[in-house]
Amino acid sequence: MSLNAQQSDSAQIRQIFDYALTGSKVYEDLHELCTEIGGRLSGSPEAERAVYWAKAKLEEMGLDSVWLQPVMVPHWVRGEREKASFQVEGAESQNLPLCALGGSIGTNGRIRGEVIEVFSLEEVDELGEQLRGKIVLYNRPMEARLINTFEAYSGCVDQRSSGAARAGKYGAQAVLVRSMNLRMDDFPHTGVMRYDEGPRIPAAAISTNAAAQLSRLLHEGNKVFVELEMNCENLPDAPSFNVIGEIWGSEKPEEIIVVGGHLDSWDLAQGAHDDGAGSVQSMEVLRSFKALGLEPRHTVRCVLFMNEENGARGAREYARVARENEEKHILALESDRGGFTPRGFTVDGNEEVKSAGLNTMRQWLDLMAPYGIHAMDYGYSGVDINFLKDQGPLLIGFVPDSQRYFDYHHALNDNIDAVNRRELELGSASMVSLLYLLDKYQWQQDNPKY
Amino acid sequence: MSLNAQQSDSAQIRQIFDYALTGSKVYEDLHELCTEIGGRLSGSPEAERAVYWAKAKLEEMGLDSVWLQPVMVPHWVRGEREKASFQVEGAESQNLPLCALGGSIGTNGRIRGEVIEVFSLEEVDELGEQLRGKIVLYNRPMEARLINTFEAYSGCVDQRSSGAARAGKYGAQAVLVRSMNLRMDDFPHTGVMRYDEGPRIPAAAISTNAAAQLSRLLHEGNKVFVELEMNCENLPDAPSFNVIGEIWGSEKPEEIIVVGGHLDSWDLAQGAHDDGAGSVQSMEVLRSFKALGLEPRHTVRCVLFMNEENGARGAREYARVARENEEKHILALESDRGGFTPRGFTVDGNEEVKSAGLNTMRQWLDLMAPYGIHAMDYGYSGVDINFLKDQGPLLIGFVPDSQRYFDYHHALNDNIDAVNRRELELGSASMVSLLYLLDKYQWQQDNPKY
Repeated sequence: MSLNAQQSDSAQIRQIFDYALTGSKVYEDLHELCTEIGGRLSGSPEAERAVYWAKAKLEEMGLDSVWLQPVMVPHWVRGEREKASFQVEGAESQNLPLCALGGSIGTNGRIRGEVIEVFSLEEVDELGEQLRGKIVLYNRPMEARLINTFEAYSGCVDQRSSGAARAGKYGAQAVLVRSMNLRMDDFPHTGVMRYDEGPRIPAAAISTNAAAQLSRLLHEGNKVFVELEMNCENLPDAPSFNVIGEIWGSEKPEEIIVVGGHLDSWDLAQGAHDDGAGSVQSMEVLRSFKALGLEPRHTVRCVLFMNEENGARGAREYARVARENEEKHILALESDRGGFTPRGFTVDGNEEVKSAGLNTMRQWLDLMAPYGIHAMDYGYSGVDINFLKDQGPLLIGFVPDSQRYFDYHHALNDNIDAVNRRELELGSASMVSLLYLLDKYQWQQDNPKY
Repeated sequence: MSLNAQQSDSAQIRQIFDYALTGSKVYEDLHELCTEIGGRLSGSPEAERAVYWAKAKLEEMGLDSVWLQPVMVPHWVRGEREKASFQVEGAESQNLPLCALGGSIGTNGRIRGEVIEVFSLEEVDELGEQLRGKIVLYNRPMEARLINTFEAYSGCVDQRSSGAARAGKYGAQAVLVRSMNLRMDDFPHTGVMRYDEGPRIPAAAISTNAAAQLSRLLHEGNKVFVELEMNCENLPDAPSFNVIGEIWGSEKPEEIIVVGGHLDSWDLAQGAHDDGAGSVQSMEVLRSFKALGLEPRHTVRCVLFMNEENGARGAREYARVARENEEKHILALESDRGGFTPRGFTVDGNEEVKSAGLNTMRQWLDLMAPYGIHAMDYGYSGVDINFLKDQGPLLIGFVPDSQRYFDYHHALNDNIDAVNRRELELGSASMVSLLYLLDKYQWQQDNPKY
């Protein structure tokens, strides 16, 4: 790249950040989504309102096309009764705050059982029939030593997703799961769980403090009983939509660059970080291109996926339609790790594509470093765009700082007040900057030298 | 550096971070300092309690020496009356939350004046006699486009530090200063101000929201009056201490590495980020060396400076005594930018020293990158250790992410709940790791090749 080109890119990126920090609407959008709509679980009236809200926002931008892509989604409802208590044998019972895991069946009235603590699915297999009639507490904590908190999450989340199916096989009555949270606090964190062909038993999360307390009581040799009642249920699939808007490419309109997050969230809070932030940042990418007069060579498409949280039906449908229509996706960027200070990007795709992509992107590290973007590495991109992987695009995950994410993830405190405006704005500016460069220099084989 | 050495350093740094994230007491210390002592303005009973608290903490670590270094400090007290209202001519008066700036005189009863808005000290000089009898509102905001929020602070803080002296020259009654805060919110942020030989007038901060509101009213053509009463005052200097503890060097005990933060804080909150965080992180450096069996070649000394906020008397005295005793300070590291996720370090000192220091430190970027440390650059180190500069040491500033710092800085919300445990722990681990390497490889001329 010539010195002139580098200077002009540097000035352009400065302008992108100036706009984000002084003129963008990304925080106002998130504030509106969080406070006027709130939590938006797939199939809920709030999710439907969010769809039309996002469509209207995209339409205001003067894009070349905005549309809704229909998709049927799971429709799980929490119900009104969600209550539990624990009791040390012979003592008074005490309140045990908990929340049903998404997809769980209800308890069909009140159930009561002795608590048994386990730390893995394997331990459940070993205990086998000893679990019959018990309430199983999965209590393996997230590994604090891991710097990337998403790795710590990955190392634990099997307890939440598969714990009930595994314990149900051996006749357990229900499972409780220690919340996926690195902080010791009092908030239960929900999240999706799945049954298999075996018996279905109720599953709920309890807070890290509560899990530690039950564990301590058990280790002191007490018998501990838990009583719980939940009337959550799975209703028939409901109609919903992915929300899509795009700016047509000036040179290669048939080649598509996707930027996206997921519009649905859990129901316990406003879904500010997960993934209101990624949704409004993706919308802001298109708004920034328009506001700054950046005319992309390729089509730049914002996709707000529905149902990432409990089924990824929106992402599956988007990928299916893309294939059916023989669309050519050259690149997809996902923001679904919270609205925190940007640190970098992860790169995925088939071997050739991801290697070319990372090599190209690393040449831009000097351009991005003044904005705190230092890390570009191979790594998982995101749940939604990953469904496009076999269609060949370069997949990129936006990586903000991860330390606080699981303090809020799927819990009642994932609200707008947990989002810092500047951190959110720096994130959208980082995304715009990277896409500006990728669109301009076409990372693919037709311009290997960049 | 040989491959073996690099592998062993890598393993050592991994161990330092493991300890910080699973075994350290840095967050517990900060929690205790914040909740059991709280704000600790120089000269206050809380500052005195903090001195003995910190001394006891250091003594528990089994260091080679712990002592108090006496120093006289300014003793400003806020007083009990601090109240203001504003009134658009002809309308009802409304409450105007404000806080006196540190060092301000009181109002000596209630004062009332018409508000005039200015944006710089220069504008005050231009307006001159037009300011007589007025209440001057300094309303130049922090520059949102600057990625490093400390630069934005530097670009504004003259209004707070010198605004009263300048406006007093022309007969203004008092000054109000827009809080040094990038966020629009309702918290007034205090901070130090200084008079010169001219007339002394009261000075207070109002919130960003309040400043914007007054500005809007003025721009709409209204006359706006402010009435205020403050009985803050400057008392005679009070005795206090720097708190110091050290581990003697195994090879060059006479060569001193300082790590420090400041123990004093403003009075409106607990001083969690400013600078409780830097204080406990500096203490944690020594505790980590002891816990991990790291025997430093040079003496590693933790200095908790008193009175950074309104006089830096502790730092001046520390430097004076160091010179008097002909101590050889080879290195000083300061943490005074909040307990946020670490990003890197800034390097200062005389030309030769800082160039050698930065070159050496940059060779360790690969070792530090897995922990999110990517940025090592020339830059200001910190208010306290800067007083050592002419004694020749390498000066290093610890640089955490700066986006949220001024949301809390000197305001009533700088409390323990604004600090994330992991971010704080990663910070102390970064400091320990860097000092471990610097101590081991001696960055100075006697080993220029590292």
